[in-house]
Amino acid sequence: MCELLGMSANVPTDIVFSFTGLMQRGGKTGPHKDGWGIGFYEGRGIRVFQDPKASSESEVAQLIQGYPIKSTAIIAHIRQANVGNVCLANTHPFVRELWGRSWCFAHNGQMPNFQGLTDFYQPIGTTDSEAAFCDLLNRIRHVFDTEPNYHELLPVLSQACAEYRQQGVFNCLLSNGEWLFSFCSSKLACITRRAPFGPATLKDADVKVDFQAETTKNDVVTVIATEPLTHDEQWTLYRAGQWRLWLDGECLASGIVD
Amino acid sequence: MCELLGMSANVPTDIVFSFTGLMQRGGKTGPHKDGWGIGFYEGRGIRVFQDPKASSESEVAQLIQGYPIKSTAIIAHIRQANVGNVCLANTHPFVRELWGRSWCFAHNGQMPNFQGLTDFYQPIGTTDSEAAFCDLLNRIRHVFDTEPNYHELLPVLSQACAEYRQQGVFNCLLSNGEWLFSFCSSKLACITRRAPFGPATLKDADVKVDFQAETTKNDVVTVIATEPLTHDEQWTLYRAGQWRLWLDGECLASGIVD
Repeated sequence: MCELLGMSANVPTDIVFSFTGLMQRGGKTGPHKDGWGIGFYEGRGIRVFQDPKASSESEVAQLIQGYPIKSTAIIAHIRQANVGNVCLANTHPFVRELWGRSWCFAHNGQMPNFQGLTDFYQPIGTTDSEAAFCDLLNRIRHVFDTEPNYHELLPVLSQACAEYRQQGVFNCLLSNGEWLFSFCSSKLACITRRAPFGPATLKDADVKVDFQAETTKNDVVTVIATEPLTHDEQWTLYRAGQWRLWLDGECLASGIVD
Repeated sequence: MCELLGMSANVPTDIVFSFTGLMQRGGKTGPHKDGWGIGFYEGRGIRVFQDPKASSESEVAQLIQGYPIKSTAIIAHIRQANVGNVCLANTHPFVRELWGRSWCFAHNGQMPNFQGLTDFYQPIGTTDSEAAFCDLLNRIRHVFDTEPNYHELLPVLSQACAEYRQQGVFNCLLSNGEWLFSFCSSKLACITRRAPFGPATLKDADVKVDFQAETTKNDVVTVIATEPLTHDEQWTLYRAGQWRLWLDGECLASGIVD
């Protein structure tokens, strides 16, 4: 299994605190030693940093922990390989362009026998995760000729997730740079931080942060993770089959599929 | 105008030496202060580092100069903005997936009125360069249903480059991770280093390297750049309209278009 981390915020916010916690689980406090990756949207562009090395030993991960890149939408992942060997092409998050936007995806779970149709988007690596991402984008293109709004898109996304879930475990994060869609097949948690901000302490590293000192009273920042990253805040656990769509740190829509 | 840098090698080779020279031109010895980017293939995966900041001031550029990432195919670019404002989405190189491979592209020149057809691949940013890259990939997909070999592909690539060149200046580097295609509209130079290796001194920084000490006798490494990067080696200048296809450091095919 792997671990997911996502962020949606109404102002460009860095993820150094949460990322520092997650990275410890990559070979140190957790077994996810088979690579890590993170995508930060910046306008319509996206920066992706990845490494097939354990995050706790990665020089690129150290750079990111020391270099607070700010973004309103972030997707990160640490990997414990199940399907697909350990290499850069099999490292999440995966990115494809659709309708002139970079779509970014990360998956936690296993769908060992997943077969997508061979169509426009094709996997570069050999993971079930990237195959599912390509399949999802191919489905979306088949349904819509031009870019839909998220209300129109949500039934297609949630229906696809429901089907993928029948084939194994499918927790995922997906973003087009504006909204961030999250789906829980088995395990996902979220927290929305807003004024009055308080302190928080990481579970996985001896790090504490006072959000009050780093934010303004209008900031809204949601963090989504496989498991709660702090032990002194109240995280909300997703139910199995539940999806939520985040925009500017707020949950705009949610639902549950069978 | 911008500057291009490419590498094709038969063994994974780092580009720290050439990159160090190029980065000086990004706001220090040259006027290309509007961003930089570099893509390193690693197996079927690709790592892309980019920054809309001047390369001579970029923290990410410093990381790369201190962290020798090895690859057999590399494309780098520093930008002096003409068409499209300065932002991450307008920063080269551009990447798209085609037939399960990451295709990477960088352009030097200007095609101020370029209009590609709206088709499958669409630009994310607002540069003429990315619009031409999308147009090129759309043309390739229209001609071939499945992945062709490079012999079949070359007439399509060179014909497209000949057309783009009619619309302005179009020097480019394009790779699918195996081969590296280069086209000279106005300015491009290359050098192939092989045994016996000698020393080389950068034009743009006080840096000298003894390739003998860093290579084996079987290594073949070709560097392609807008202008020669060293002053004590014999670079070959491309002629206007000339293209070359590189694989494992060797030139496999070349030609000239009108």
